[in-house]
Amino acid sequence: MKVATAPGLKHVEITSDFWQRYRELVVKEVLPYQWAVMNDQADIKIADDPQNGGQDTNSHAIENLKIAAGQSKGHHYGFPFQDTDVYKWLEAAAYSFSYHADSDLKKITDSLVDLIGDAQESDGYLSTYFQIDAPERKFKRLQQSHELYTMGHYIEAGIAYYEQTGNDKALQIAIRMADCIDASFGLTSGKIPGYDGHPEIEMALSRLYEVTHEQRYLDLAHYFLTQRGQDPAFFDKQNAEDGEERDIIAHMREFPRSYYQAAEPIKDQQLADGHAVRVVYLCTGMAYVARFIGDQELLDACERFWNDIVKRRMYVTGNIGSTTTGESFTYDYDLPNDTMYGETCASVGMAFFARQMLALKAKGAYADVLEKELFNGAISGMSLDGKHFFYVNPLEADPQASAKNPGKAHVLTHRADWFGCACCPANLARLITSVDQYLYTVQDQQILSHQFIANKASFDHNVTLTQTNNFPWDGDIHYSIENPDRYPFKLGIRIPNWSANFELTINGQKTEKTVQDGFIYLEIEEATTSIDLALDMSTKFLRSNNRVSADYGKVAVQRGPIVYAAEAADNDAPLWLNKIETTKQPTYQFEPDLLNGVGTVTLTADRPLLDPTEAPLYTLLEQSSTDQKTAVKLIPYYAWANRADGQMMVWLHQKN
Amino acid sequence: MKVATAPGLKHVEITSDFWQRYRELVVKEVLPYQWAVMNDQADIKIADDPQNGGQDTNSHAIENLKIAAGQSKGHHYGFPFQDTDVYKWLEAAAYSFSYHADSDLKKITDSLVDLIGDAQESDGYLSTYFQIDAPERKFKRLQQSHELYTMGHYIEAGIAYYEQTGNDKALQIAIRMADCIDASFGLTSGKIPGYDGHPEIEMALSRLYEVTHEQRYLDLAHYFLTQRGQDPAFFDKQNAEDGEERDIIAHMREFPRSYYQAAEPIKDQQLADGHAVRVVYLCTGMAYVARFIGDQELLDACERFWNDIVKRRMYVTGNIGSTTTGESFTYDYDLPNDTMYGETCASVGMAFFARQMLALKAKGAYADVLEKELFNGAISGMSLDGKHFFYVNPLEADPQASAKNPGKAHVLTHRADWFGCACCPANLARLITSVDQYLYTVQDQQILSHQFIANKASFDHNVTLTQTNNFPWDGDIHYSIENPDRYPFKLGIRIPNWSANFELTINGQKTEKTVQDGFIYLEIEEATTSIDLALDMSTKFLRSNNRVSADYGKVAVQRGPIVYAAEAADNDAPLWLNKIETTKQPTYQFEPDLLNGVGTVTLTADRPLLDPTEAPLYTLLEQSSTDQKTAVKLIPYYAWANRADGQMMVWLHQKN
Repeated sequence: MKVATAPGLKHVEITSDFWQRYRELVVKEVLPYQWAVMNDQADIKIADDPQNGGQDTNSHAIENLKIAAGQSKGHHYGFPFQDTDVYKWLEAAAYSFSYHADSDLKKITDSLVDLIGDAQESDGYLSTYFQIDAPERKFKRLQQSHELYTMGHYIEAGIAYYEQTGNDKALQIAIRMADCIDASFGLTSGKIPGYDGHPEIEMALSRLYEVTHEQRYLDLAHYFLTQRGQDPAFFDKQNAEDGEERDIIAHMREFPRSYYQAAEPIKDQQLADGHAVRVVYLCTGMAYVARFIGDQELLDACERFWNDIVKRRMYVTGNIGSTTTGESFTYDYDLPNDTMYGETCASVGMAFFARQMLALKAKGAYADVLEKELFNGAISGMSLDGKHFFYVNPLEADPQASAKNPGKAHVLTHRADWFGCACCPANLARLITSVDQYLYTVQDQQILSHQFIANKASFDHNVTLTQTNNFPWDGDIHYSIENPDRYPFKLGIRIPNWSANFELTINGQKTEKTVQDGFIYLEIEEATTSIDLALDMSTKFLRSNNRVSADYGKVAVQRGPIVYAAEAADNDAPLWLNKIETTKQPTYQFEPDLLNGVGTVTLTADRPLLDPTEAPLYTLLEQSSTDQKTAVKLIPYYAWANRADGQMMVWLHQKN
Repeated sequence: MKVATAPGLKHVEITSDFWQRYRELVVKEVLPYQWAVMNDQADIKIADDPQNGGQDTNSHAIENLKIAAGQSKGHHYGFPFQDTDVYKWLEAAAYSFSYHADSDLKKITDSLVDLIGDAQESDGYLSTYFQIDAPERKFKRLQQSHELYTMGHYIEAGIAYYEQTGNDKALQIAIRMADCIDASFGLTSGKIPGYDGHPEIEMALSRLYEVTHEQRYLDLAHYFLTQRGQDPAFFDKQNAEDGEERDIIAHMREFPRSYYQAAEPIKDQQLADGHAVRVVYLCTGMAYVARFIGDQELLDACERFWNDIVKRRMYVTGNIGSTTTGESFTYDYDLPNDTMYGETCASVGMAFFARQMLALKAKGAYADVLEKELFNGAISGMSLDGKHFFYVNPLEADPQASAKNPGKAHVLTHRADWFGCACCPANLARLITSVDQYLYTVQDQQILSHQFIANKASFDHNVTLTQTNNFPWDGDIHYSIENPDRYPFKLGIRIPNWSANFELTINGQKTEKTVQDGFIYLEIEEATTSIDLALDMSTKFLRSNNRVSADYGKVAVQRGPIVYAAEAADNDAPLWLNKIETTKQPTYQFEPDLLNGVGTVTLTADRPLLDPTEAPLYTLLEQSSTDQKTAVKLIPYYAWANRADGQMMVWLHQKN
């Protein structure tokens, strides 16, 4: 077979029960709920972000835009990046139109685009905080201002809205913003030789380049990446000029330069240090730009950061960020489960990064991480009712510890209505409504089908690919390919890292295929092809690399892509008393009435009697009660904290 | 035998090698070193106290007194309680004269008393911070001012100096201070119906009552205890009047009332909540006052707090305080080893509390805790060279974690030269130089010998008691009692909780005795009595109550009173890889050339190979290397961090 250029992807319809439920939930609950919150019309309690101090019960995000647009009076309220709540919501809504037309919502979003347009200044600038309350400080304190971050989020939203609805105004607002930034930043005289304290604009500009093919935007994104850290004192100098003490966000000056990935040029940065979301947004931008420009230093940095995060700094659920201080990475193999951060946005950002890496290279490991985020670390950020959210996603939690040990005060054991810093809810919403964009990567030579989210995809040359399955609960994956024009192409199907064993049947014939860097490749040229892939859905005990002190002597449980957790709702507390018998086979059961339908795992464990409170605090080892046999029931990690408040543990003591 | 009133204690000479070394170290190194520091004549680096922000390299403590005395000009420098560094040092020096006459030092201390007298105001008030820089705010912000805390420390020092040297001026300064406080505080009109944010004055006044027999001082101490928390808003009201934002110590307003044990009256406080040092100082005062006044509510509170601390909130080394936030207790059984506080001062204060509880009741458990502090949690606060100090005493430490995980930044892995908030070094020094006062408790009916620190003690009625041993390394305790007048008395000898088995030989006759609440009792009436007590010095594996999640599945090692620790100086890192075989008998060896002579313990452990850095972060459990047998060498906890910087662990994984 002569393999031609792979047919381009036209449309993906998600048919997966699991994801359809989430996507409908966003339409029915999440979007209306978040819209009400942003309009200060929801009756909610806002959880304080421990990083940034308390907020009251209003979001004020729409009101800020109205004030900037001259439609209302007052001061800006909230964080300087409050506008991004609106933009991420708009982006999520835009994607939702791809599978759920909604004329009422469309009226709202069209009006919102008009409002944003009205709020935008004539030169393209838009950041309501500065427009309303600090016009003289525009672009003058980039360490803290989030101006490019904010406009970057709009650019992404505007493109999405334009692409989904054809609303050109939405795109023009984005273009004017990019032009404003392009006019203001760079190394030529009169421009600011800087960049934003929070990376984001780099991916937004890359996306704008993809839509407009305007080279300036790509060059500007590239500039932001290569300039970063060239003058490590850039932010300090700006702060000094702006007035050292005049912080926009309290205490932000106190973080080290590495918090902003600005301590040295990216090409010299060896470790994924600093604020986790900043790191993965930066990495996404790097991979995006590098794909178009082919900058080897950027490509190397992508690989280096990827490896450091995935091989040494990522929780088994895909969460990242080991400390609440600065919501940051700490050091290699430092993965405490109960004091960690694991911000929802960081998992969403990691999914972005993985998607861009896949576009660079057909490597299953990237798709493994993408899947890990989609089924674990990211979706754990939202409750099953779509109205409560986690900012922090711990792997071990105890309501008493969160209430009474200040070092764990940032760890909520139930999802909050909303946050003062509300970056996470809408970020997750836009990932869910756009998840159809994460299933295929079409490269020159091949279509990669790297996610087992049931769907029907149409490609150029009349190719359709229908994937049916009951994933993540079952591992029987069926593909039905219609190719009436017999257009020859190569199809890569991912073999997940959790399924070393698999069975492949093509048109009824059992077939052997060698796995190449996480994929098997088939050459498709018949009019119809039927593929059955049976993945290994046995329940597995995992251990950490033993450089991770927090997990030593403990096991985690995974089945397919789903990482499991023990919860007090199903098991006697304290959960830590259970010592799992890893020589006993776990049992698996799908429970349709539990937590919207989940597969549960039951383990066998030894467990001593709980010592009485009047027992001595320390005793001779031999004075221990005899262990009892007990069963420990696990639920998927993403579904925890949807019942009564209680303890939760992912890593369980192993009986050794 | 008719048992008479027990003969009063006259003098104790410490002969223990272990403690003589420490006591001479204080004389030769600690006192001169600290004196130089307080006079800003030492070349030191001051470690920042993470609670209170940075300080520079000067103490300024003596200079503050000189300024207040009119002998120098300038502003106060340091914390409002900076004076207490001087007072605790003076108290430590005073006690040292009981075993080491030193005329050069005496000249210094006499002059220091003169300086303090010159700094004192005519009404008895002395707090250099307020005298120099805020005279209008005296007693007006007691939540933060530490004025009574500061004067309380002087009162203790002045009494000690008077008792050891006969210097009456030292006592008169103390009396004037107490009179000043008595004139200012109370419930009668014109007085302040309050108390200090940091308990201390209660024990100082009790001590002054003991010396002067002046009932007013005891009543005043009692007032401070019963008034505490009666108006939970007292501090808030004072702050509002003083000017809400005018904090003397930044952020102190933000702590809850329970931080100050002022949320409710002591009789209603059920838990040992708040700042650990405040709690144990308060408890010491309560027990002290209750002994003279017999207030049942105070006695009950003493028992309640004791039980909560010792049964549910104390580390195996005697350290207390589970969080760095406010240097505080958290909740029952919350004893994390790597993020804990365990302040040296809190262990010193716990020794005070135990001593007072022993004076109330002949209960071995009090003496067990006293011994635990003396041989572990307290003395770990000082390096073997006497010139470096721990503020925080962790049970698990890793230099990389301390450097790179902000949640552990407060945990030093090597002792510091000095601290901005330098409460600990001199507090430990005064405990060491007065340790002779901690060996006996003479009650109406009996002499209790509750510590196995070799000594020669003289009592009234010509009774002398000579205890010889090589404790804590050997458990053969010999008593030789001379009682030429054949004065009949009862002698209680403690049987430690770590020695369920013991052998008693009296005058060469093996004797059986029943242990009564931790003591065996002998009736002494012969002219000479020889007692040999053989304690169980086998090495023991301990476990925690399994309500302590941090220690579950782990063991600690204790031999005699000494708790052991593994250190990277003796063992391959990472230390956490070792799984201790608790069925194998540990071996014990005294090593005279190691760490000034310590007994070491060697355990048998299984240990996997360290996973390579390029290995996956998570793998199937079965993909583990075969364990190797290894030996793990332990040193006494108090002696850790006297060699190269490295990991340390007290609680070790148990092979189960």
